[in-house]
Amino acid sequence: METFLQEAKEASSIVATLSGTVKNQVLNDMATALIDNSERIEEENKKDIVAGKENNLDAALMDRLLLTKARISDMATAIREIAVLKEPVGRILEGWTTDTGLNIQKITVPIGVIGIIYESRPNVTSDTAALCLKSGNVCILKGGKEAQNSNKIIATVLQEALVKNNLPKAIVSLLPDASREGVAKLIKQDEYVDLIIPRGGHGLIKYISSNASVPVIKHDKGLCHTYIHKDADVNKALDVSINAKCRRVGICGAMETLLVDENIAPTILPQLKVAYANYETELRGCVKTQKYIEVTTATDEDYATEYLSNILSIKVVSNVAEAIAHIRTYGSDHSDAIITENYTDAEIFMNSIDSACVYLNASTQFTDGGQFGFGAEVGISTNKLHARGPMGIEGLTTYKFKIYGSGSTRA
Amino acid sequence: METFLQEAKEASSIVATLSGTVKNQVLNDMATALIDNSERIEEENKKDIVAGKENNLDAALMDRLLLTKARISDMATAIREIAVLKEPVGRILEGWTTDTGLNIQKITVPIGVIGIIYESRPNVTSDTAALCLKSGNVCILKGGKEAQNSNKIIATVLQEALVKNNLPKAIVSLLPDASREGVAKLIKQDEYVDLIIPRGGHGLIKYISSNASVPVIKHDKGLCHTYIHKDADVNKALDVSINAKCRRVGICGAMETLLVDENIAPTILPQLKVAYANYETELRGCVKTQKYIEVTTATDEDYATEYLSNILSIKVVSNVAEAIAHIRTYGSDHSDAIITENYTDAEIFMNSIDSACVYLNASTQFTDGGQFGFGAEVGISTNKLHARGPMGIEGLTTYKFKIYGSGSTRA
Repeated sequence: METFLQEAKEASSIVATLSGTVKNQVLNDMATALIDNSERIEEENKKDIVAGKENNLDAALMDRLLLTKARISDMATAIREIAVLKEPVGRILEGWTTDTGLNIQKITVPIGVIGIIYESRPNVTSDTAALCLKSGNVCILKGGKEAQNSNKIIATVLQEALVKNNLPKAIVSLLPDASREGVAKLIKQDEYVDLIIPRGGHGLIKYISSNASVPVIKHDKGLCHTYIHKDADVNKALDVSINAKCRRVGICGAMETLLVDENIAPTILPQLKVAYANYETELRGCVKTQKYIEVTTATDEDYATEYLSNILSIKVVSNVAEAIAHIRTYGSDHSDAIITENYTDAEIFMNSIDSACVYLNASTQFTDGGQFGFGAEVGISTNKLHARGPMGIEGLTTYKFKIYGSGSTRA
Repeated sequence: METFLQEAKEASSIVATLSGTVKNQVLNDMATALIDNSERIEEENKKDIVAGKENNLDAALMDRLLLTKARISDMATAIREIAVLKEPVGRILEGWTTDTGLNIQKITVPIGVIGIIYESRPNVTSDTAALCLKSGNVCILKGGKEAQNSNKIIATVLQEALVKNNLPKAIVSLLPDASREGVAKLIKQDEYVDLIIPRGGHGLIKYISSNASVPVIKHDKGLCHTYIHKDADVNKALDVSINAKCRRVGICGAMETLLVDENIAPTILPQLKVAYANYETELRGCVKTQKYIEVTTATDEDYATEYLSNILSIKVVSNVAEAIAHIRTYGSDHSDAIITENYTDAEIFMNSIDSACVYLNASTQFTDGGQFGFGAEVGISTNKLHARGPMGIEGLTTYKFKIYGSGSTRA
């Protein structure tokens, strides 16, 4: 482990100062190498597929695991798209001259060595490696056990492209000990590792952020709300509420709880019931909700649950203050929306809700780096510090100060 | 503890949305209250002074502990200076419209509840409380045991100003259980606390960053270097080297190791010896150094030590690459400088050294928020993420996205 980490740290000083031209050349070579090695990759992927069947993985997981020529080609395309992003390193964020004559530049630099812990889909391996390389970072990848053969061959192919360009393999590597103990060790190596990004279940993320001494950027749960205010436009409210829940139920930006103002509840709840019936969404509601539509009872536990499935909790609230209080109690500070034509209450809601993304008259499913126009997405951070919400490639950089003097001494 | 933290969290939603006008009014009231209560404060401070004498605290520590009318007046002035800073909350950092017609604002918001753990000087209590209030945060303060009576009365006086303005006392509070166990509990409360800022000894900081589940912004050690390149201007090199070491030896930006290029060593080392003799600086050097001047031998342990006292390690290096390698091995990524007139090597050094502050022809003692023009300083972060190096009040804010749609749904 020690030697492995030392190599990673040494490689980080090499990749940090590569020019954009070189990095893009390597990225394009990586893309080509993936396509040229499609058969090798499919062969190794088959081992994971066979093991997955033996272990009775569910159909959705098996589908995410499978690599075909077309999917490998998509992985290559994703790398080429990362190559054409604007160079993220060396951007001067601010610059000024002090009274004492120092010229100060605040300039973006890579973070260093980044450990990424993720599950199942093997394309995350190539996406993440490409994002880290483009931003001048070394990555240590730890994918899911069920994709181990696929991840290993993908990393090997990417390393071949590094070696072809006379760069150390350690710029992209898999954690050698991929066991739970290996992860437990990795997250304590603050001397070598600068950042851990865990992507996966709530338990894994909780474990890592409680035990890491390395800083962590979490990609944790989204318990998202939409609040239909009394002055909502009914059609907008219907469109947005359906989209926020039903477009895709399994993503972190999907709405889990719908809050309905009591003044609009008699009008809109019956229409919502009809609309959700088309999507076979299971509705659960509070006692007040049950005055207007027939639904099973929502418990406190429902309001605290990120279903990630086709179930929706509904609560009738008496005003914007009650909506805000509910979200404060049950929300996860991810994405929350208000539907209203009322300017004052819209701003009260948007300023009071302390979530990464707060929406007016829009679906919470927009929380996504691609939708925000970030070009490539590292993920959706539920951290408050450094990177919050949809995280583009600049989230993989930090800054330093370059200070130019003229023999300057401090008085 | 639970009730205390709940009150802090509730207070955070109140202070987060206060207008600048209200916050400034409270800050000015706090300043006035400190002066009006000078006698009460001095009285409580005397208890700490008496206890300090009983515990044989050293003279420097005793001096830092002492509060006089003049020092209390300085604390009030510092608060008034924080009040006039530009409002840090609600700044729109970026804004754009997406292809799908969403209008997105990336806007600064307070972090929430901040725990600050610090030592000795009681003025940190009022400075920190004022910085946190100005940036819309609740602070939980844990000062040194030796200043407990002083900190308690200062916090009480600040709370009286909050109450006078109908605001909850919990906006500024002392950690009720200030024992080591109390701190151990606090740093695990990620449900209530958003950030821990430890300021103090390396041991304390190491303990906190290894054990916290709350994110930490460290203010750790500075093992700073100055490298005199072969093409240095000798006068600049002498001025800067003396200033970097001798202006103040006990601050984190003070130079601990001087690297001298072998091509300039014969010229400059004898001059440096004379110059440092004026400041009675103890010099320790490598074998090559000892060829030119008489000094005791510097060991590997010397190069790894942050002296914070009037001792300087010297090493003769053969080129910029060896200087960079030495700093990578022994440095703490805080502040490092090169003295040269050579443009190419200057940029190689400044781009390769991964420190918060990299200087050309300037003293590392400039690493200070005041010197950078930040107006008020939270401290000097040795984190890579969120805030790096001198940390102004904007380091106490984060951002969120406000997204304005028109009934927008995602395709």
